[in-house]
Amino acid sequence: MKFGVVAFPAKKLQDVANSYRKRYDPHYELITPHMTLKDAFEVDENETKKLAQGLEEIAKRHKPFKLHATRVSTFSPLTNTLYFKVDPDPGILSLHKDLHTDFYDSQTKYSYVPHITIAQKMSDSEHADIFGQLKMVGIDHEEIIDRIHLLYQLEDGSWTVHDTFRLTGDDQ
Amino acid sequence: MKFGVVAFPAKKLQDVANSYRKRYDPHYELITPHMTLKDAFEVDENETKKLAQGLEEIAKRHKPFKLHATRVSTFSPLTNTLYFKVDPDPGILSLHKDLHTDFYDSQTKYSYVPHITIAQKMSDSEHADIFGQLKMVGIDHEEIIDRIHLLYQLEDGSWTVHDTFRLTGDDQ
Repeated sequence: MKFGVVAFPAKKLQDVANSYRKRYDPHYELITPHMTLKDAFEVDENETKKLAQGLEEIAKRHKPFKLHATRVSTFSPLTNTLYFKVDPDPGILSLHKDLHTDFYDSQTKYSYVPHITIAQKMSDSEHADIFGQLKMVGIDHEEIIDRIHLLYQLEDGSWTVHDTFRLTGDDQ
Repeated sequence: MKFGVVAFPAKKLQDVANSYRKRYDPHYELITPHMTLKDAFEVDENETKKLAQGLEEIAKRHKPFKLHATRVSTFSPLTNTLYFKVDPDPGILSLHKDLHTDFYDSQTKYSYVPHITIAQKMSDSEHADIFGQLKMVGIDHEEIIDRIHLLYQLEDGSWTVHDTFRLTGDDQ
């Protein structure tokens, strides 16, 4: 079964992200706006409990972090993906590192860029056009994230929350 | 802000439900298959923390419950809604009662029928046709639910999980 770990921003930022995603992101229907902390990884369904326990331990080692979305950026030329760039807060980076150190699929394909996707799978010309527009509108949103979510993917591609974990920092 | 409380069944049942919802439920995109425990209710965003604490207390008073989906049924003639009927396990009913006793919108419009919606907003003829088909296929799925989720609704109608609460029964 495919699992993933994300943080959901507050309603306000999700609403802004969805106003773009509705038109420009084919994954719009599959999950609400989020910042991915660990990409989809495969774990046997019978091991869900163990996975959740491991994630709970990680969450206890981390304090709430600041999510500051500062501007609209793009992954082009890698992919035609637009996103709200999230400031690489040390708290986010250390949580991401912990989620990729001796914890299931530890490999990461790319260096980690905290972000919230707002558009993807566009043609080159659409990408250039929309990026030009959204870059000017920009974004500036700041909030404290005090929980992360373990999701699993259904056969139709949509994601369901399995459990939520508080970032308490108790075991720091 | 609109909140709701639901239980998500295991992937297996969600996949079956979605195979129908994809075609017959216009809410398919807004939320993954679920059993509603408390319908949408309005709470100020600033009170989210208090709401979550209240729900945590309720969750502590209840033990995990059995979700047994036994057959395909309909809310017709009230509405043309088809659903997997869930056995009214005493654990489900007492949790539902607690969620509607001195806890935000305590009014319930209808008597509570635990269910997982698989089709809605169909014409009378489509409803009769699909109900005939699905009733024969039927459903028989049983699992233990040990957590409930507090959701909030975005402006586009989709639902995000705010937090998850374990049914521990510790404060029973």
